Amino acid sequence: MGIVVQKFGGTSLADTDKIKNVAKAVIKEKNNGNDVVVIVSAMGHTTDYLVKLSSEISKNPNKREMDMLLSTGEQVSIALLTMAIQEEGYEAISLNASQVGIITEKVHSTARIIDIKTDKLNKILNEGKIIVVAGFQGVTEDGEITTLGRGGSDTSAVAIAASLKAQRCDIYTDVEGVYTTDPRIVPNASRLEIVSYEEMLELARTGANVLHPRAVETAKVYNVPLRVRSTFKLENLGTYIIGVNEMEISKNVTGVAADTTQVRIVICDVPDQPGNAGKVFEKLAQSNISVDMIIQSYARHNLNTNDIAFTVDENDLKNTLEILENVKKELNASNIFVDDDIAKVSIVGAGMIDRPGIASSMFNALAKANINIKMISTSEIKISCLVNKNDAKKAIQVLHSTFELGSDEIAEVKGDLPNFV
Amino acid sequence: MGIVVQKFGGTSLADTDKIKNVAKAVIKEKNNGNDVVVIVSAMGHTTDYLVKLSSEISKNPNKREMDMLLSTGEQVSIALLTMAIQEEGYEAISLNASQVGIITEKVHSTARIIDIKTDKLNKILNEGKIIVVAGFQGVTEDGEITTLGRGGSDTSAVAIAASLKAQRCDIYTDVEGVYTTDPRIVPNASRLEIVSYEEMLELARTGANVLHPRAVETAKVYNVPLRVRSTFKLENLGTYIIGVNEMEISKNVTGVAADTTQVRIVICDVPDQPGNAGKVFEKLAQSNISVDMIIQSYARHNLNTNDIAFTVDENDLKNTLEILENVKKELNASNIFVDDDIAKVSIVGAGMIDRPGIASSMFNALAKANINIKMISTSEIKISCLVNKNDAKKAIQVLHSTFELGSDEIAEVKGDLPNFV
Repeated sequence: MGIVVQKFGGTSLADTDKIKNVAKAVIKEKNNGNDVVVIVSAMGHTTDYLVKLSSEISKNPNKREMDMLLSTGEQVSIALLTMAIQEEGYEAISLNASQVGIITEKVHSTARIIDIKTDKLNKILNEGKIIVVAGFQGVTEDGEITTLGRGGSDTSAVAIAASLKAQRCDIYTDVEGVYTTDPRIVPNASRLEIVSYEEMLELARTGANVLHPRAVETAKVYNVPLRVRSTFKLENLGTYIIGVNEMEISKNVTGVAADTTQVRIVICDVPDQPGNAGKVFEKLAQSNISVDMIIQSYARHNLNTNDIAFTVDENDLKNTLEILENVKKELNASNIFVDDDIAKVSIVGAGMIDRPGIASSMFNALAKANINIKMISTSEIKISCLVNKNDAKKAIQVLHSTFELGSDEIAEVKGDLPNFV
Repeated sequence: MGIVVQKFGGTSLADTDKIKNVAKAVIKEKNNGNDVVVIVSAMGHTTDYLVKLSSEISKNPNKREMDMLLSTGEQVSIALLTMAIQEEGYEAISLNASQVGIITEKVHSTARIIDIKTDKLNKILNEGKIIVVAGFQGVTEDGEITTLGRGGSDTSAVAIAASLKAQRCDIYTDVEGVYTTDPRIVPNASRLEIVSYEEMLELARTGANVLHPRAVETAKVYNVPLRVRSTFKLENLGTYIIGVNEMEISKNVTGVAADTTQVRIVICDVPDQPGNAGKVFEKLAQSNISVDMIIQSYARHNLNTNDIAFTVDENDLKNTLEILENVKKELNASNIFVDDDIAKVSIVGAGMIDRPGIASSMFNALAKANINIKMISTSEIKISCLVNKNDAKKAIQVLHSTFELGSDEIAEVKGDLPNFV
């Protein structure tokens, strides 16, 4: 017995009936003999509604005031869920981030947690009460309200679990766990019972946004055992996410994912001088643009120049091109070429290390399916290929089958499943 | 030039267009050269919506959690109004009660303010910024969120004005001021340009709920000049509410009001022994039941017993009767009689003192209109008569005319006018 942290997202709290259902899941964990801390998001579409109100007032609302506004959504959830737990005869208390002491840096809308006060939490847990904490929000040392940005509530949950040294952090959602790939594309995609932080990170980054990479990273750093499970099917154990060292057997390939939100950019004919590639990516980094795959190759027609190709998120395209226009002049490059007809298809697996056959199996399978590979990049536990966008679906199906990831059952697809492709 | 506190209620903030309108009223005051602190309620029907959510979860929700829930309403308002002010190019910042330090006693849902920290407010005002503060809410020394109960936002505004020694507290609402009586009953009711705290209190207690009595009392204690004015007609100066000593001329009668929410209770044949009346009202006070008019008279048929008659709010009737059932046995009284067909009609005026003719004018006017008086009570600045409920409207019209309170203009009646009758 120990402390279990549970996190429920907005879909699980969409209305008061769903909130009562969540209360039952909380009480079930409490009845297992555990101390329970619950982290919640705002109800259903509350955040969208608040954003809409602000957009009616300002096209570019002040970030401090947006945090003041949006943080109310989670505060509504904690009060209602606490009432629902009390209604079942259990002692519970709600706390917002200021009351807990979830201290963040002085940044609005994308603050990072720097400390979580545990005195009050431990005191209340010792009194036998269930604690319901507002996710997504924090407070600066000066008492300013902040929010954590995307994946904020997941991150709140993992950070609180880490600070309380919880035995487990359960992320309740409306999918039944982490799948080998998107069940809408491969109907017999199988639920993974166990996956490592590292694999989950790669799956998350390549589009499987069941869980925000930021939360997975925090869990990895503090070694917090995670579990993704369904609020609506409590009998299903979901997917455990733990350290790779704690896994007995590593599969060669754990999952297949695709990301269609990237664009490929090629800078042609960059003179082959030391430091030129560095200059390109330094400028992009200064503007906070994340670059994903990078390939530098000799330009075909001129062996004294290189072509530098890389991918960025489509939202960063405009910004990237502005920066590159200057870089092009500075480096005396010939041309900038943009390709938005791409999808990044990846296979992920902690067991991939030291098994060189995996990569060639992937390339052969794609070739056999007549799918052209535009770029390749690899990490220790991932191989990604850029393909044409309309080949993505076929690529996933082919790779899922090649690496025998399917189950005998047809996976059930719920409405809010993340967009793999 | 000095500090002006402005308070805007939910109707003035019902949607984002109205919020933009409020921002203009705030900026107008700022442009007059004043430092401005704005106190706001929750938008329109937000509180009703939150109460509905809680009622779907529990019939008797925990008061602490209700405060956690309801306080979000004002927090939404402060953020949106601040954005709207900023959008007009003015510097503004929102603060919730915790951030200001509006310290209350440790009571949920009806907390009283015990202290307001002014350091932060004064510091921000000195920087030239407009401050937007959440009304209705407070915080205990331990950081628990509380709410102030009915009339809470008005009280927040007056208390902040008192603590900042503001030159004025303007209560913006959707009526144009305090009227001599309900314009729906007397179409030529006139707006009072000035009224004393004491008169306003009597008018408020007898049903003219433009302003909550609690806020008026606080203003009286700290001598905060109040003004009630319309958010939607800024050219209208509204009604000033100040100390009676500061008024140059006191009218004999300032206004006529009626209250139809009371019931009359008579305990018959209470033996005429010292202390018996005290016992009755002590028991009621212990149960927090406010008694309004009290009359003790000899029972007609038995000169050794008294009939004790009094009025209570209709919401307290059930509770009152339960208590009286025991009291009746203890005192050996014969009967308890309830009359809910009553209305209390009052005339109010600070100039009434030492003018004995006013009372007889009132009684004569009602008699001439064939209106039977069931009970009478008087204070220094008020005379109240209980009449039958269906005589209330006529009584108001007759008294308004008798004391020549009408204006030449027909008052404009807006939707949200308080229910006088």
